[in-house]
Amino acid sequence: MRCIKCKKEAEVRLRSPKVGFCSEHFLEYFLRQVERAVKKFKMLSPGQKVLVAVSGGKDSIVLWDAILSLGYEAEGLHIDLGLGEYSEASRDACLQFARNNGTKLYVVSFPANTRKSIAEIARNARLPNCSVCGVIRRHLMNILAEATGHRVVATGHNLDDEAAALLGNILNWQTGYLARQHPHLPAYGRYFPARIKPLVRLSEREILSYCRLRGLNYYEGRCPFARGASSLVYKRIIEELEEEMPGTKHRFLFGFLKEERKRFVITSLEMKECRICHHPTTSEVCVFCRLMQKAGIEPNLPYNPEIFTPESVLESTGERRD
Amino acid sequence: MRCIKCKKEAEVRLRSPKVGFCSEHFLEYFLRQVERAVKKFKMLSPGQKVLVAVSGGKDSIVLWDAILSLGYEAEGLHIDLGLGEYSEASRDACLQFARNNGTKLYVVSFPANTRKSIAEIARNARLPNCSVCGVIRRHLMNILAEATGHRVVATGHNLDDEAAALLGNILNWQTGYLARQHPHLPAYGRYFPARIKPLVRLSEREILSYCRLRGLNYYEGRCPFARGASSLVYKRIIEELEEEMPGTKHRFLFGFLKEERKRFVITSLEMKECRICHHPTTSEVCVFCRLMQKAGIEPNLPYNPEIFTPESVLESTGERRD
Repeated sequence: MRCIKCKKEAEVRLRSPKVGFCSEHFLEYFLRQVERAVKKFKMLSPGQKVLVAVSGGKDSIVLWDAILSLGYEAEGLHIDLGLGEYSEASRDACLQFARNNGTKLYVVSFPANTRKSIAEIARNARLPNCSVCGVIRRHLMNILAEATGHRVVATGHNLDDEAAALLGNILNWQTGYLARQHPHLPAYGRYFPARIKPLVRLSEREILSYCRLRGLNYYEGRCPFARGASSLVYKRIIEELEEEMPGTKHRFLFGFLKEERKRFVITSLEMKECRICHHPTTSEVCVFCRLMQKAGIEPNLPYNPEIFTPESVLESTGERRD
Repeated sequence: MRCIKCKKEAEVRLRSPKVGFCSEHFLEYFLRQVERAVKKFKMLSPGQKVLVAVSGGKDSIVLWDAILSLGYEAEGLHIDLGLGEYSEASRDACLQFARNNGTKLYVVSFPANTRKSIAEIARNARLPNCSVCGVIRRHLMNILAEATGHRVVATGHNLDDEAAALLGNILNWQTGYLARQHPHLPAYGRYFPARIKPLVRLSEREILSYCRLRGLNYYEGRCPFARGASSLVYKRIIEELEEEMPGTKHRFLFGFLKEERKRFVITSLEMKECRICHHPTTSEVCVFCRLMQKAGIEPNLPYNPEIFTPESVLESTGERRD
C-alpha cells in the first residue's frame, strides 16, 4: 500500500477508510483530526490556554504533544493516586515529557494530602475502586484548574474509549451518563472548568502509530485496579465489531453525538452548590465530599501541587530516562 | 445443582438467575415465561385464535408447542421460499408437528406463485437477499392472516434475537426500526394483523432445553443466505456479553422496552394505503409491490395456500419421519 498523498511506501494503514499514509502525511492527518474535533465541538479558541490531564499513558502523552504541536498553550496536570510502582512510573513519564518539551507540569498527590488510599476509601463507601478513583480525579482536576487559572481541561479519551463507554451506558441504559457523554462539556460556574476530549476522532491504533512515529515515551503499565473492569469488556467488544464491520465505532459514536444524544438530555436538572466545597452538584453535599466524610477525611484540603517549571523538571528527573 | 422447586437433581441450569430446574419444573417455568410475556404485552386475550408463523426451526416449533400448551387455538402458517433442500426439510418439520398435534397448517409457496427466486428479485432490486426475503415473508404473512381470518400472527423471535436486533439497530442508529421494535405491534386496518413475539423472555439455550425435554423435532439447517449476515455477528456479540455479565441481554432489551423505546417513537408518521395492494404503507406504493414491479411480477397474485387439516397432513407426510 502507498501513501494516499505522496505515493511513497505507506508507514501506517488505516482500516476505515482503507488508506495508507507515509510517516509525514500520517502525522499531518492525525493533527488534522485533532483540529477537526477541536473546531467541530468548539473546544478551544485559537491560542487558548489549556490544562492537559496527563496520566503518563499513551493517550494523554499524545494529547499533550498534539495540542502543543497545534500551537495551543498547554500545561500538564498529573494526579498521583498513590498506587505504588504504577503511579511512580506514570509520574516519571509525565515529567520526562514536560522536560523534553519545556512545559510546566503540576503534580498533585492524593494520598500525600489525605494519608488514605483509594482502596480504603472505596471499602468505606462500599463502592468499586474505579468509581471512587473517577470521582476523586475529577474533583482534583477541577480544584487544580481553578487554582492554576485554567478554564479548560483536556483529557486523552479516544474514539475507542468513547465508543466503549457509550456501549456500556446503552447496554445498561445509564441515561444520566448518556446525557453527559460529549467531547466538550462546557464550563459551569467558578469550579467546573470546561472538559474537552480532542482525541475523540482517533482510534487506539492511530494513537499508537502517532506515538511510534513521533518517538514519544509513555508508561505502558495498566492500572492495578483495571483488571476485570467492565470497561475493558466493552472495549474488546467494540474492537471485535470494528474488525467485522469497519467503521462501526465512528458511526456508533458520531451518530449518537449528532442526532441521538439530545433524546437523553434532561433540561430540568437543578444544580445546587455543595454545602462543603461549593462545587456544583445536584444534591446538598457533592459525591466527593460525601466520600471524604465517610472515610474521615477533611474534604477541603488545600491540595497544593508540586510545580515543575521547565528548569525544575530538569533537576528533578536528572539523567534517568534520556 | 438441584431443582429450586422440588430439590430433585437439576436437568436444566440457568445462568441468570443462577437456578436449576428438574424437567417438570423447567417446563412449568418456561410456559410461565411465555404466559408472562403474553400478559405483560397484552398479546392475546384468553382463548384467542392465533396464526403461528412456523419456519420449521426450533424457535417457531417451540412457540407453536408452547402456545398450544397454554390453551390457545393456534394454526400454523409456513412460507416456502423455494430454497431447495433447506426449504423442503423446513416444510417437512412443520408438517410433522401439525400431524403430531392435530392442528391445521397453511403452506404457501412464494416461487410456485411467482416463478422467480428470492435471489433474482434481490439482484433486480440491488438489495441484500435477507432484506428482500424479510419484506416478502411479512407481506405473505399479512395476506394469509387476512385470507384465513386471523387478526394475530405470532413469530418465534426469542430474547437473543431481540437483544441482537436491538444492538444492531442501536450501533447503526436505525431509529425507525427502534421505534417499531416491540414484542406486540398492534393490528392496523384490514391488512396488518397484530404481530406478537411470545418467546421474547426466553433465551436460545432455554428454547433448546425445552425442545429436548418435550422431545420436539425441528429442522436444524441454517438458511443458505444467512452466511455472513450481520445479525449473526450481533448475536455472537450479545452472547459474549452475556457470558461476561450474565443478565445483560434481559437488562438491555427490557430496559429499552420499559423506558427508552418511547424516546424513538415518531407519532407524526402518516400512513397511506398502497395504490396497488391496499396494504398500509408510508409511501404511494409499498416496498413489496415495488420489489415485484422491478422483478416483473404481478404484485396482486392470489397466493392460495395448501391447507393441511389434521387428516390431510397424515396423508401427505406418510410414515416418513416418525
